[in-house]
Amino acid sequence: MSQTMRAITAPSPGGPDALTLEKRPLPEPAPGEVRIAVTAAGVNRPDVFQRLGFYPPPKDASDILGLEVSGTIDALGEGVTGWKTGDEVCALVAGGGYAEAVTVNAGSVLARPGTLSLRDCAGLPETVFTVWANVFESGALRPGETLLVHGGTSGIGTMAIQMARAYGARVIATAGSNEKCVLCERLGAELAINYRETDFVEAVKAAGGAGVVLDMVGGDYTARNIAVLNPGGRLVNIAFLKGSKVEIDLMPVMLKRLTLTGSTLRARPVAEKARLAAAIRQTVWPWIAAGKLEPVIDSVFPLERAADAHSRIEDGDHMGKILLTV
Amino acid sequence: MSQTMRAITAPSPGGPDALTLEKRPLPEPAPGEVRIAVTAAGVNRPDVFQRLGFYPPPKDASDILGLEVSGTIDALGEGVTGWKTGDEVCALVAGGGYAEAVTVNAGSVLARPGTLSLRDCAGLPETVFTVWANVFESGALRPGETLLVHGGTSGIGTMAIQMARAYGARVIATAGSNEKCVLCERLGAELAINYRETDFVEAVKAAGGAGVVLDMVGGDYTARNIAVLNPGGRLVNIAFLKGSKVEIDLMPVMLKRLTLTGSTLRARPVAEKARLAAAIRQTVWPWIAAGKLEPVIDSVFPLERAADAHSRIEDGDHMGKILLTV
Repeated sequence: MSQTMRAITAPSPGGPDALTLEKRPLPEPAPGEVRIAVTAAGVNRPDVFQRLGFYPPPKDASDILGLEVSGTIDALGEGVTGWKTGDEVCALVAGGGYAEAVTVNAGSVLARPGTLSLRDCAGLPETVFTVWANVFESGALRPGETLLVHGGTSGIGTMAIQMARAYGARVIATAGSNEKCVLCERLGAELAINYRETDFVEAVKAAGGAGVVLDMVGGDYTARNIAVLNPGGRLVNIAFLKGSKVEIDLMPVMLKRLTLTGSTLRARPVAEKARLAAAIRQTVWPWIAAGKLEPVIDSVFPLERAADAHSRIEDGDHMGKILLTV
Repeated sequence: MSQTMRAITAPSPGGPDALTLEKRPLPEPAPGEVRIAVTAAGVNRPDVFQRLGFYPPPKDASDILGLEVSGTIDALGEGVTGWKTGDEVCALVAGGGYAEAVTVNAGSVLARPGTLSLRDCAGLPETVFTVWANVFESGALRPGETLLVHGGTSGIGTMAIQMARAYGARVIATAGSNEKCVLCERLGAELAINYRETDFVEAVKAAGGAGVVLDMVGGDYTARNIAVLNPGGRLVNIAFLKGSKVEIDLMPVMLKRLTLTGSTLRARPVAEKARLAAAIRQTVWPWIAAGKLEPVIDSVFPLERAADAHSRIEDGDHMGKILLTV
């Protein structure tokens, strides 16, 4: 690897064509960081928002796009223990994933599970961390409870279905076509609702309601999510594709003792990501080793075709993860 | 005591004059219940809503008003252990408190703390259970965090201030007059905001924001409560005096990882109330014994003047608890 690398940025906001291939200096790992020679990077919806100028990277984060990678450790910063050059890993990064190399705090790194190709590992971090932090921690899903997942065939959706099933919970998913519903059921949803044809509120209530709802829609979905939650239920928002300004009646929140919450991963401090990574290593990685879950890969584009990858995620026809290979 | 008793009901919804003194049969304790010869009953806002016809008693609850009493146990149902006739107690009841006697599951009963008169004990259960369940359990207040209490001189407010202080939290309270603010500070609030003169949002932010907000207002307060919560903060609603239909932006809920929740006590199952009572006995009762908190008594009316007690709570001029003596 030379002292420069190829990387994708969005110097001025715009459509997929705003993505620009640049030469950047190869980053050096700071103390506590490793550098990963990137094999593949996952494409996520926040990348689209960042490209559009709606979601600026946090202070101190790279302006290069990309929130997750897989690859091989090729340099260690001062004081890093537990990793060595040559280790095949995947990592949650605060930015900088769409590039030939990225530096990241060692605490956000997880070893490649032996059952997966290094490339496909790039589809794990963002979905697994997000589902773990939101469904298992904030949502406190319990075995036997029902999780309602909207967007069941999104990267997050496909992982949420599998992780909830691996944990012994029941899953209901919504999706926008019968083909997508088939995938949800194949992944373990006991009911998949085509929201273009069926009102999910009635269908979920008829199936016994939900203990936890994982929502990335917002808008009019918020009141409808409240309606399907059983007493003590939790609504967790990780995005607001229909907007975050909602008109809701909080009376059922009080009477059913519901919890409305949500979170983002990116802004969490490094120590918090390390804590999540440790919990995931202990609980989720064995599920992968046991064949209970794997990333669903929709499509793979070379890094220089990042614009096509963004068009695909924006079209909404994808099922599972979209990857860029370096 | 004869086989009949005096009791207050609201046979048809209306103003304070809808309250009616009736003769009722003396209730017999069912298995697991005790009967309390009532010394005093607390007057609470849900009693007003019930009188107005907005808050019907739960199934199986008495139509006699009143959610808390103090008095002396005078009969034991089958299988009750740990209590004997003559014990001086207070209790959270699902209804039936405005009467000469009331039956209640033994799990909802707490012994009179030695430092308080039996009459004043009637001012404890509803406020202590409500604050414990909402601020300490749902809100998970931590020592050193700041609790924002609206209605700081209400029965709930006066108890929330004292309990949070006893626990080592900081307290900010809002109230509707300078006189009320003085009481809040005397009870331990480090800042009391007269909401008629000062925007609480700016004042709370200037004081470092809040970790937990205890709110009974709703309406436009909901968005403003969200604004003052620090990252990870919790908003707990126990009523909606300005309405439960709110227009809010959930984006800060996600970005600050807030929790919006709430609960009512009355509909909780008996076992749940017993669990709360056990926690309160262990943690709050010693605070009372140590002189760290006591019910603030606004005024005391004889049972037959329940209408005057309701007028007083509706006027909003009261500070602390209003009691009826039997």
